[in-house]
Amino acid sequence: MKEALDGFREECAVFGIWNHAEASRMTYLSLYAMQHRGQESAGIVTLSEGQHLIHKGLGLVGDVFSEDELKRLKGRASIGHTRYSTTGQNLLANAQPFHAELLRGPVAVAHNGNVVNHKTLKSKLRSTGAIFQGTSDTEIFLHLLSKSQDIPIIDALKLALPTVDGAFSLVFLTQKKLIALRDPWGFRPLCIGKLDDSWVVASETCAFDLIGATYVRDVEPGEIVSMDDDGLQSTFYAKKETKAQCVFEHVYFARPDSKVFGISVYESRRNLGKLLAKESHVDADLVIPVPDSGTPAAIGYSQESGIPFEFGIIRNHYVGRTFIQPSQSIRDFGVKIKLNPQSEILRGKRVIVIDDSLVRGTTSKKIINLIRNAGAKEIHFRIASPPTVSPCFYGVDTPQKDQLIASYRSLKEIQDYVGADSLAYLSMDGLYKSVNGDNKKFCAACFGEKYPTAIE
Amino acid sequence: MKEALDGFREECAVFGIWNHAEASRMTYLSLYAMQHRGQESAGIVTLSEGQHLIHKGLGLVGDVFSEDELKRLKGRASIGHTRYSTTGQNLLANAQPFHAELLRGPVAVAHNGNVVNHKTLKSKLRSTGAIFQGTSDTEIFLHLLSKSQDIPIIDALKLALPTVDGAFSLVFLTQKKLIALRDPWGFRPLCIGKLDDSWVVASETCAFDLIGATYVRDVEPGEIVSMDDDGLQSTFYAKKETKAQCVFEHVYFARPDSKVFGISVYESRRNLGKLLAKESHVDADLVIPVPDSGTPAAIGYSQESGIPFEFGIIRNHYVGRTFIQPSQSIRDFGVKIKLNPQSEILRGKRVIVIDDSLVRGTTSKKIINLIRNAGAKEIHFRIASPPTVSPCFYGVDTPQKDQLIASYRSLKEIQDYVGADSLAYLSMDGLYKSVNGDNKKFCAACFGEKYPTAIE
Amino acid sequence: MKEALDGFREECAVFGIWNHAEASRMTYLSLYAMQHRGQESAGIVTLSEGQHLIHKGLGLVGDVFSEDELKRLKGRASIGHTRYSTTGQNLLANAQPFHAELLRGPVAVAHNGNVVNHKTLKSKLRSTGAIFQGTSDTEIFLHLLSKSQDIPIIDALKLALPTVDGAFSLVFLTQKKLIALRDPWGFRPLCIGKLDDSWVVASETCAFDLIGATYVRDVEPGEIVSMDDDGLQSTFYAKKETKAQCVFEHVYFARPDSKVFGISVYESRRNLGKLLAKESHVDADLVIPVPDSGTPAAIGYSQESGIPFEFGIIRNHYVGRTFIQPSQSIRDFGVKIKLNPQSEILRGKRVIVIDDSLVRGTTSKKIINLIRNAGAKEIHFRIASPPTVSPCFYGVDTPQKDQLIASYRSLKEIQDYVGADSLAYLSMDGLYKSVNGDNKKFCAACFGEKYPTAIE
Amino acid sequence: MKEALDGFREECAVFGIWNHAEASRMTYLSLYAMQHRGQESAGIVTLSEGQHLIHKGLGLVGDVFSEDELKRLKGRASIGHTRYSTTGQNLLANAQPFHAELLRGPVAVAHNGNVVNHKTLKSKLRSTGAIFQGTSDTEIFLHLLSKSQDIPIIDALKLALPTVDGAFSLVFLTQKKLIALRDPWGFRPLCIGKLDDSWVVASETCAFDLIGATYVRDVEPGEIVSMDDDGLQSTFYAKKETKAQCVFEHVYFARPDSKVFGISVYESRRNLGKLLAKESHVDADLVIPVPDSGTPAAIGYSQESGIPFEFGIIRNHYVGRTFIQPSQSIRDFGVKIKLNPQSEILRGKRVIVIDDSLVRGTTSKKIINLIRNAGAKEIHFRIASPPTVSPCFYGVDTPQKDQLIASYRSLKEIQDYVGADSLAYLSMDGLYKSVNGDNKKFCAACFGEKYPTAIE
Repeated sequence: MKEALDGFREECAVFGIWNHAEASRMTYLSLYAMQHRGQESAGIVTLSEGQHLIHKGLGLVGDVFSEDELKRLKGRASIGHTRYSTTGQNLLANAQPFHAELLRGPVAVAHNGNVVNHKTLKSKLRSTGAIFQGTSDTEIFLHLLSKSQDIPIIDALKLALPTVDGAFSLVFLTQKKLIALRDPWGFRPLCIGKLDDSWVVASETCAFDLIGATYVRDVEPGEIVSMDDDGLQSTFYAKKETKAQCVFEHVYFARPDSKVFGISVYESRRNLGKLLAKESHVDADLVIPVPDSGTPAAIGYSQESGIPFEFGIIRNHYVGRTFIQPSQSIRDFGVKIKLNPQSEILRGKRVIVIDDSLVRGTTSKKIINLIRNAGAKEIHFRIASPPTVSPCFYGVDTPQKDQLIASYRSLKEIQDYVGADSLAYLSMDGLYKSVNGDNKKFCAACFGEKYPTAIE
Repeated sequence: MKEALDGFREECAVFGIWNHAEASRMTYLSLYAMQHRGQESAGIVTLSEGQHLIHKGLGLVGDVFSEDELKRLKGRASIGHTRYSTTGQNLLANAQPFHAELLRGPVAVAHNGNVVNHKTLKSKLRSTGAIFQGTSDTEIFLHLLSKSQDIPIIDALKLALPTVDGAFSLVFLTQKKLIALRDPWGFRPLCIGKLDDSWVVASETCAFDLIGATYVRDVEPGEIVSMDDDGLQSTFYAKKETKAQCVFEHVYFARPDSKVFGISVYESRRNLGKLLAKESHVDADLVIPVPDSGTPAAIGYSQESGIPFEFGIIRNHYVGRTFIQPSQSIRDFGVKIKLNPQSEILRGKRVIVIDDSLVRGTTSKKIINLIRNAGAKEIHFRIASPPTVSPCFYGVDTPQKDQLIASYRSLKEIQDYVGADSLAYLSMDGLYKSVNGDNKKFCAACFGEKYPTAIE
Repeated sequence: MKEALDGFREECAVFGIWNHAEASRMTYLSLYAMQHRGQESAGIVTLSEGQHLIHKGLGLVGDVFSEDELKRLKGRASIGHTRYSTTGQNLLANAQPFHAELLRGPVAVAHNGNVVNHKTLKSKLRSTGAIFQGTSDTEIFLHLLSKSQDIPIIDALKLALPTVDGAFSLVFLTQKKLIALRDPWGFRPLCIGKLDDSWVVASETCAFDLIGATYVRDVEPGEIVSMDDDGLQSTFYAKKETKAQCVFEHVYFARPDSKVFGISVYESRRNLGKLLAKESHVDADLVIPVPDSGTPAAIGYSQESGIPFEFGIIRNHYVGRTFIQPSQSIRDFGVKIKLNPQSEILRGKRVIVIDDSLVRGTTSKKIINLIRNAGAKEIHFRIASPPTVSPCFYGVDTPQKDQLIASYRSLKEIQDYVGADSLAYLSMDGLYKSVNGDNKKFCAACFGEKYPTAIE
Repeated sequence: MKEALDGFREECAVFGIWNHAEASRMTYLSLYAMQHRGQESAGIVTLSEGQHLIHKGLGLVGDVFSEDELKRLKGRASIGHTRYSTTGQNLLANAQPFHAELLRGPVAVAHNGNVVNHKTLKSKLRSTGAIFQGTSDTEIFLHLLSKSQDIPIIDALKLALPTVDGAFSLVFLTQKKLIALRDPWGFRPLCIGKLDDSWVVASETCAFDLIGATYVRDVEPGEIVSMDDDGLQSTFYAKKETKAQCVFEHVYFARPDSKVFGISVYESRRNLGKLLAKESHVDADLVIPVPDSGTPAAIGYSQESGIPFEFGIIRNHYVGRTFIQPSQSIRDFGVKIKLNPQSEILRGKRVIVIDDSLVRGTTSKKIINLIRNAGAKEIHFRIASPPTVSPCFYGVDTPQKDQLIASYRSLKEIQDYVGADSLAYLSMDGLYKSVNGDNKKFCAACFGEKYPTAIE
């Protein structure tokens, strides 16, 4: 129950396909499947007879593309992108993929992540005459490519990428191949799949499931994978860094039916709930999730604790992106339009409420209040992740540090603020165990761990 | 997982409010909360300075009404309607509420249900000169009212309604009052609520929850309730029939967080699952729902059987109303765009799959197939209602009898058709127990019980 | 230069076609050609396999209909309608054609005109149970038809129409034929044409020109013409009244390339200018029109007087229906957005300015002011019609009497108000001569002649 | 009667304003007034608190901008652009103004014209790393500016512009000033005006008339004019070339009520007609224009020859940009939808038909045919400009040389092709006289005169 209210927000999905008779349509469907990763804009670039065909627009994938538009986007290779809402005007100028005509021919790029040293890089590029049209950092990659035009593109990438700090899972389409690569830390996911004679790459495997592709493996941190009619080629452009894969993908961002960093998201979320139950057990009558984001963890909590799982709050899935606000007269309207607690289930009960994370606390406060008004006797609030105390600089839209309630209030103060009878977070140790990894593989900077890169 | 695929479809929601400073806005929000009952068209009529103001349009509530339009719809009383997709052209002519200028002044009406003897009534009305503009049966009520214009409207209703057979939960707005009534059988729901000094009526209580109103009671079958500045007045226009409230509201139509016919829908669905577990137990590793419609019953099944509940199928809630179909190359695409089974959860497991009902069987067959491909070892399909064998004539859109698989195939044949390892339905007895009623209170004609009225 | 500013406004165009393979497309194009007669809404009804197919919408013909919609509107017979902007909400409910399912089958009607005794007729119909859905008077005709359903429709029309006072050029589409008729006075035009094996009827002949049909004759006042596969049949339902054809069609409403009441509009307008020159000659250097409505009369004035014709004011034809107003800072903006006087032509000149009519005077005042500022030395304003002193009740949207400047101000006062150096209108005699008719054939009630019917 | 059919097409309008409280609104209205110069896209950039605010879109000015959008475009300085339809996809990427963040701050540019050596310049820029996002040549100017960032922008322009060949009337908006400049030949127009305390620049003076600004003078060929709060500053960046102002602006492109290159367009067009009458007199009964483009010349022809002027062809101004085509069954439909000859005027007459130019001849052939069918006895076709024999490379969309009928057919052959009884063009001498200039001031390359620049 996070989007648009009070939470972290994923910023993009990328996709690519090589050698498919309906390349633009497969891209469209895959973006559709990854719509949760970005709802502001969508775009597709195809390769047709040596030229790039492009369509981008503001809005949901289903609104941006029409049947006619997909028919116009001919070609057997294609990349696509969806983007989350960001501040600022001129949004269309920031819609991806970006495209440019270089001396080597047309190049298009779709980016999930965020370049940390973008100011330094942009001002260096500007001083040599580069022009930036949008405010996005993704244009940097095209400009870097244009600096060494006489060598093969893979070599040009190997030359350019070591100067870039930060998170970048990238998909390129050129006149001759599809290229997929990840930064040396592997912040954001990127998977390789196979669909008959086609290669596909996507941010999440749920895209593969929809189009009937099979998951092969992840693109590795620091790896450049290029796909063309001669098959798949791999090379590494950077020495192996300590992996720093975003653990919040498992906490909240990814679809539960995706495999991310090779691990089932649903399973890791259920694990988060199980370990939470072990760490902070409390006697109660019911375990209920804040749907949908808290649901898998609540199931895990119930399984571990033996306390019955119920949907004590019903989520209205018919809520569109926009609706007209009522006057101020309806209290907590923003939460009520989506979530409706059920007094028949809750009245007189001791309830454990599971949410995936707690960011500002404002939404949690309203939810706890609604549950209280529905008649719950005790409310034990359990968060299936540790306290979020630091902003992210790697492609996630997070509030400033001083908006993160756990960065300036004690556990007891937060419990009082949201109005729960008890409050507990998962430990860092529990978090890492849930994704059956050790702490060496993940970035958990938002939970107070060290930032893997320098920050400008 | 029923809409647009293979199921029964609810056809309308109605709403009314008297004496509220933001009457049209409250109506808008309430229709928004009841969007699941009808997505083809939406309309609102308000009473302002003795005149009716009207806006109707095709599409979702959020698309039909703009801020400007709601501002134009002034007045302290209002009624509204949403309508499900039906066949035929000229859909806007069938959008409700209907409005007419009678000798007694403006009258508007919103209708949930279906008049069974509409052909007879329409042709009788036509022979005395009545003109029908749409193909809907709802216009009948306005024409009946226009036949006796010299007497108070409540008296006119009492005179006219006994000639009408079928299902009608109606909300009228006149120049002086808001009127709510139900047919003598009480097929479709209609609830009364209170919001400070305002009276409200709605098809489901989830509308009350959103706008902060309190549920008072149902309008009774055969009762006419009129609300105006003198308060609420009740009268009965028909002798008490045996109640025939639509049990399918509890099986599938209503939102789980609504109270329908005075009973919590979530609780009755959980009961359906519990009784299903008692009646047709099977050893298994997991209980999984076909989300979202099978979820509460699956929770009940798990609680009763002790077999763990999991989300073995993930539903993509970002699916919009329209998207572009792929070529034929993607098998079972229509189901996959919404439902994605998880092999990590299902592989090698004996799985009990719970759905709310089974109509044509075509969707179930695809779902079972997807689960099988995800690696489930055994699939035990359990339906949380009895076999649907007869079409409905009381305001629900159902396939013809020869499309209802249970009407022409044996249990074993259906099991083979959908590809399950075992199949069981709930018994009629279990169904009635779940809604803690006896069989005297409900219509279960679609399950093969007697039609409560004559059918033309 | 009248629309939306300060003038009389035509209220409708009607069209019908029988026996054409592309009936809806021919209707669409004909409405397109008659767009000047109504820009608020457009609608088409076709007859396909005994059923009526309908599409209506708000806006210009080109916006209301898509290729897909026209394809859906199958059938070899069709009627259509465009409607001018009127006040009041719920405009779509007033869009025509109207359609009803009568005992005799589907009947649709399109109406140009206005029923003078509509209040009496509506209240009589209401007292026998009729329901009116819009505020238009056109529904009356369908209700009258429904009163005598056992006799052939032509007989029913003959029975009903004598009770109706006012202006009505009507086109009906039934299950079996296309019917066209005019009121006994013949207020509004209606022409019959032939297109290969198809019959067509239209408000103006410019529609015939576009689709390649040949003008045959007018429907006569009081005549009912029915067209079906047996050909054309004619009958008269009323004794011949003195003709009262709207002379303002020739002054302003009709397209100049149409023939109306059998007379070329362009020629009659040029005649108006010639006779104006004879009646009110003045020495000057230039004759300029207020474009486009004053152009043909200005050409006539120039030919008769020998004074050179120039476009001293240029009209911007790219002006759309809506644009965003500037702040108050731009004086006379409403006129300037369309009309731009040319100082190179006007500076130091004695100018005769020709407009077709003068209604409120507010626009004329602005135009004269603009011309003066462009440097004209003398401005002689000449109106190619007599003073408008009475409102119209026969299907034309006119201001109230007290808004018609000539009804309460003297010639000299009007001249001073608009700021001209001299002002002259055409005489009534000149008006009648211009349409080469005697005064027996025309209604000129707006110019102060007797109203042809009683007025409620 | 040229657009979309068979003619030359202007490609852009530019506008700029400095120091106005409603800068974006004045830009909007001015673009509205110059809509005839480009209908594919429109855009506005404003300067607000040191930042650029941007909105661009496809379509007419009135459709691209809403009230809300104009309110968002705050600031006291603004530039704008409208663009004609060109081939190729990704049209939005070519919409202007272009904007970039340079080291010196934000710079936006709007361009009317065409860079002749754009291939050379682009490939030189690309080889130093420049990236081009659209296919337009206008991006070149921003890239050139980014090459010398340490010096004042005027100096940078002086350095860069001498490398650019071709036509460019440019308007720049920076953080500190508004800059307007023309290429050394002065191909395309650009005027300076004053509106109270604001400076304005526009392609045509009709924009000034609408917003109430006063024409001051033209920007001179080779001149850079910069406007800021210190007033207007002028400098020349190029030695004076022989002027080569586009004479076709006077023949067809500009609005007749504009002053272009300091000359009234209406007057020059009337002169074209007068000289045409002198050069190729013929006895006839009527002079008629192909409206609207041939109208001023026809008035001049009539005045000179004494033969009466009439509107023998009526133009339907309600024709929108899009309408649905009929089947093939309507002959010459594309012309008939706009032009309707009047047989009442033409029947039995010897007619002189005046058009502004003759390009492919296909439209003329249809028009002559329609006039013949309307009954004209003799048709003398007179073209108010010389034969067009060469394509334009200076910002005008023209057919290839082999599509220009006069480049490969004799006068007699063209006469036979269009079906006229006689045909005459204006002489080059007559053309130059009409714009009261000598041949030194104008580019007439399309009429076979020398191209003023080298062509790549």
